[in-house]
Amino acid sequence: MYRTHTCGELRISNAGQQVTLAGWVQRIRKMGGMSFLDLRDRYGITQLVIDDSISHELNEVAGKLGREYVIQANGVVMERSSKNAKMPTGDIEIKISAINLLNASQTPPFTIEDETDGGEEIRAKYRYIDLRRNPLKRALELRHKMAQETRKYLDSIGFIEVETPVLIKSTPEGARDFVVPSRMNPGEFYALPQSPQTFKQLLMVAGYDRYFQIVRCFRDEDLRADRQPEFTQIDCEMSFVEREDILNTFEGMTKALFKNVLGLEFADAFPRISYSDAMKFYGSDKPDIRFGMKIAELKNLQSEQEDLVSGKSFPVFDSAQYVGAICVEGAAAYTRKQLDELTEWVKRPQIGAKGLVYIRVAEDGIKSSADKFYTPQDLSAIADRVGAKVGDLILILAGEKKRTQEALGTLRIEMGNRLGLRKSDHYAPLWVYDFPLLEWDEESERFYAMHHPFTSPKPEDMEKFYSDNREDIADVAANAYDFVLNGTEIGGGSIRIHDSAVQKRMFEVLGFSSDEADYKFGFIINAFKFGAPPHGGIAFGFDRFCALFGGQETIRDYIAFPKNNSGRDVMLDAPSKIDESQMDELFLKSTVKR
Amino acid sequence: MYRTHTCGELRISNAGQQVTLAGWVQRIRKMGGMSFLDLRDRYGITQLVIDDSISHELNEVAGKLGREYVIQANGVVMERSSKNAKMPTGDIEIKISAINLLNASQTPPFTIEDETDGGEEIRAKYRYIDLRRNPLKRALELRHKMAQETRKYLDSIGFIEVETPVLIKSTPEGARDFVVPSRMNPGEFYALPQSPQTFKQLLMVAGYDRYFQIVRCFRDEDLRADRQPEFTQIDCEMSFVEREDILNTFEGMTKALFKNVLGLEFADAFPRISYSDAMKFYGSDKPDIRFGMKIAELKNLQSEQEDLVSGKSFPVFDSAQYVGAICVEGAAAYTRKQLDELTEWVKRPQIGAKGLVYIRVAEDGIKSSADKFYTPQDLSAIADRVGAKVGDLILILAGEKKRTQEALGTLRIEMGNRLGLRKSDHYAPLWVYDFPLLEWDEESERFYAMHHPFTSPKPEDMEKFYSDNREDIADVAANAYDFVLNGTEIGGGSIRIHDSAVQKRMFEVLGFSSDEADYKFGFIINAFKFGAPPHGGIAFGFDRFCALFGGQETIRDYIAFPKNNSGRDVMLDAPSKIDESQMDELFLKSTVKR
Repeated sequence: MYRTHTCGELRISNAGQQVTLAGWVQRIRKMGGMSFLDLRDRYGITQLVIDDSISHELNEVAGKLGREYVIQANGVVMERSSKNAKMPTGDIEIKISAINLLNASQTPPFTIEDETDGGEEIRAKYRYIDLRRNPLKRALELRHKMAQETRKYLDSIGFIEVETPVLIKSTPEGARDFVVPSRMNPGEFYALPQSPQTFKQLLMVAGYDRYFQIVRCFRDEDLRADRQPEFTQIDCEMSFVEREDILNTFEGMTKALFKNVLGLEFADAFPRISYSDAMKFYGSDKPDIRFGMKIAELKNLQSEQEDLVSGKSFPVFDSAQYVGAICVEGAAAYTRKQLDELTEWVKRPQIGAKGLVYIRVAEDGIKSSADKFYTPQDLSAIADRVGAKVGDLILILAGEKKRTQEALGTLRIEMGNRLGLRKSDHYAPLWVYDFPLLEWDEESERFYAMHHPFTSPKPEDMEKFYSDNREDIADVAANAYDFVLNGTEIGGGSIRIHDSAVQKRMFEVLGFSSDEADYKFGFIINAFKFGAPPHGGIAFGFDRFCALFGGQETIRDYIAFPKNNSGRDVMLDAPSKIDESQMDELFLKSTVKR
Repeated sequence: MYRTHTCGELRISNAGQQVTLAGWVQRIRKMGGMSFLDLRDRYGITQLVIDDSISHELNEVAGKLGREYVIQANGVVMERSSKNAKMPTGDIEIKISAINLLNASQTPPFTIEDETDGGEEIRAKYRYIDLRRNPLKRALELRHKMAQETRKYLDSIGFIEVETPVLIKSTPEGARDFVVPSRMNPGEFYALPQSPQTFKQLLMVAGYDRYFQIVRCFRDEDLRADRQPEFTQIDCEMSFVEREDILNTFEGMTKALFKNVLGLEFADAFPRISYSDAMKFYGSDKPDIRFGMKIAELKNLQSEQEDLVSGKSFPVFDSAQYVGAICVEGAAAYTRKQLDELTEWVKRPQIGAKGLVYIRVAEDGIKSSADKFYTPQDLSAIADRVGAKVGDLILILAGEKKRTQEALGTLRIEMGNRLGLRKSDHYAPLWVYDFPLLEWDEESERFYAMHHPFTSPKPEDMEKFYSDNREDIADVAANAYDFVLNGTEIGGGSIRIHDSAVQKRMFEVLGFSSDEADYKFGFIINAFKFGAPPHGGIAFGFDRFCALFGGQETIRDYIAFPKNNSGRDVMLDAPSKIDESQMDELFLKSTVKR
């Protein structure tokens, strides 16, 4: 060992001890015949003091040092005269008698400080330097802790960790697979798994009862912001369970993580809400319930609630399938300019509202941009329904139901942000369940699985699932659920189909020919013929789970070596060209001109 | 939950309780108006008793059941009249009142017994059925335990688990890389890592001090028996350490595994032996020290020990560079036929000895196949050197030193097997150190790194490393070490180069042009310029580690979904052809005729 202690370890109780430390030079300051050097390692920073008069040799070595030099230093622990209460080692300093230069450093391309001066690109290229900064170090330490606690909890309740293969079979359905040419099987390819879905189901067929894995998954998608081509899942599956069993089990896991990683106790059960209620009240299938501001329906053709807006000669509301509102607390003072800007904001194509109607509930009465059509009594009725009181602002959107709900949901999040209601250190978990099973795609004229083709229909919808009528099939609910944290979907899962006949029907509904289904999924259809137990599971997006626990929105700092938005590792400069001889061995030719 | 208890859980203390179990039908026996059904799940087997007279309905369901049907059964726990001491649940049985058929099963293609009737191929195809058998279940449970205990130990001594990327840059050197065409970067490829070697070194440069990961690695090699294209490593790296620190740390880890997984305590330090002594005494760089039978040198031109065999007119020994012997205890009774057969065995090309000389040390005197040349006194001197006593058999080989040592090593293992000295439940770990750094390849006329190009030369050999003389360079020892268990190399590592100038010299010695080194390893050469600490590490072959702990020689049972010797997953039927449209998206054409 090059050291007796780490740079985070020494305290006043060590005073008088002869110690050896090793680490990186964070900074050096000269002050009247003395040099003060902050030595850094993973565990902290310790101040070294070099008395220039002690020895010429020591002085000379110290004079050569610069930022990020790696040294070994020997000396005696002394109590500091001016203590630094902000540092755990702030009560002491080391009076140095010898320094051994272990490695020099070029001047780093940016400062190793919490707030660095480096741009994103340069930090990505020198990731090994960026990783020295505290925010990234803390992120990876949090991730480590999350992984250990996850395994510890699942192991303690009888889950077995099984490693599933990375070189598997390509069965694209939904996202694109990354593929790997096989040299030993000319013209054939492996695929990298988008998830170990079929393997974990096979493990249930094999009787493993409770499986988990923290596992790398791969998706060759055009990368949206904050997506990575490779990402990590906490992947889990259980046998002989119903939905409630899975929600309870993983609520337990999540509470253990909150407690052991963040020190937060959740005494109550997490809220549970159906997909349709999530859409109705939050305009989202992943509601952020850190704040209220629930959507109120003013008109909904499918609801029996009283229509508060039609028949008042306001054509926009008269013709709308749906009119909904949110109440923004204390925002009645919004100016005309702010409201105009908000109107433009909801009309952007990402949101797609046609316009915005507002009602101000002010001291001096109730005022609306639709005053022409509505009496103060009409407006009061609306204010009552949305629960507005004096000082609040009501925002109303109208149009096709689902789109308008979603637009209101987006507007709600925006107003939550503007009002500072979405605090990163406030955690509001919930479960959403009963998602639709299928989604009709107009372009390809077929159904797609909302979750994946192994998700079971709800038992009570089984008759509709076998119907010849497309509307009936579209109406089938899935026995599926999501775990949502602060408006982000962190986990998703379902009770699976375990009956080979139902699985066959699913492939039929998805428009696979029998041959196609056999070619792609023959092994699992077959497996279900040999005693598949009822089973279900869930997978958590581990990168995002860690980022949220760290109070961050982006995952990139929670991955040691991430890729950029073009899927490149700019540090490695990968992907890259390979030799012609490698191509030849793989029986491949590139169609790109070199 | 479909059950109140598992099939491994109920005991006599549960007698009288109403319970519900779920699982697979292991077997059914009819006996005079009663059916006895063994119900199996991951946790054990419980006997269900169905009284045919209880209800027509129950009787009818029971009559339909066959092997591997999945059922849920309800009943009362009863004390058995004839107890089965071999089963943890053998004191009780369940008197069944209701059975719910959860899923039927076709007759499985082989029996789900410890000794099955299925051949290797059919079991591979139906892996999910084979995994139901106890030996495989125990293997995967052992692997789970090994993984948890490894992480627990390393976490407890401050190691941080960091996930490194799977999509990296192709830098073939040694084995072939698997590559992954990039759709977003036309004509370019990612590679799958052969190990996270460079990443863990970058993490040391980044100051992470103690890193580990249980990680998948990939090698596109022609598969020898019991090799897999994807395999798992316990991968570790430490900063500010010397060799002793690493050996002590991972000796601690290994002892913790022995203790917590197998219940075995190793009080003493593991033996440590240099590479040259391992070759000298065991003819192998991975000696099996579960038994002695050390090699004795009878003649070694590089040794000062007395030559016991030359100058007696036996041309084979006179002309040999090296003559060595092993003493096989109690084997003096080997017949002429057995010895002839052994002679043929050592002459096989895999071993390549020219012949075999034996000496029998029998009650009635000492006899040899080279009696013509050696007096009884000569033979006695040999017997003394190898430590033979009455009843032992001495086997002697001669020839070029290294080859003959290796042949003796192989013969030693064979004799150990024949004498039953290699018991799978006896564990003999050891460390081997001071390997050669480089290996000269006559064909390509260049040096190859024995370990990998990041291994440091021993400090005392640094001058030779910079020599212009090829002999000097060939003579440089590496600061490298292997962990060996029962004659199998389980772990290997080294102190790394942390000086960019030394790393540059290494690439020069390996015959890389400066451009080539920069293109392939520029990022790490660069990283070393920004304050790389002294560091070193080790990686353990996790699959084989688990297999040895399980007392098995082959790894295939310790991998849930392994590939066969052609790299195929016969269950999935992967690799497979992909669509032309997928090829087009990747800018690839196959040169294989479809």
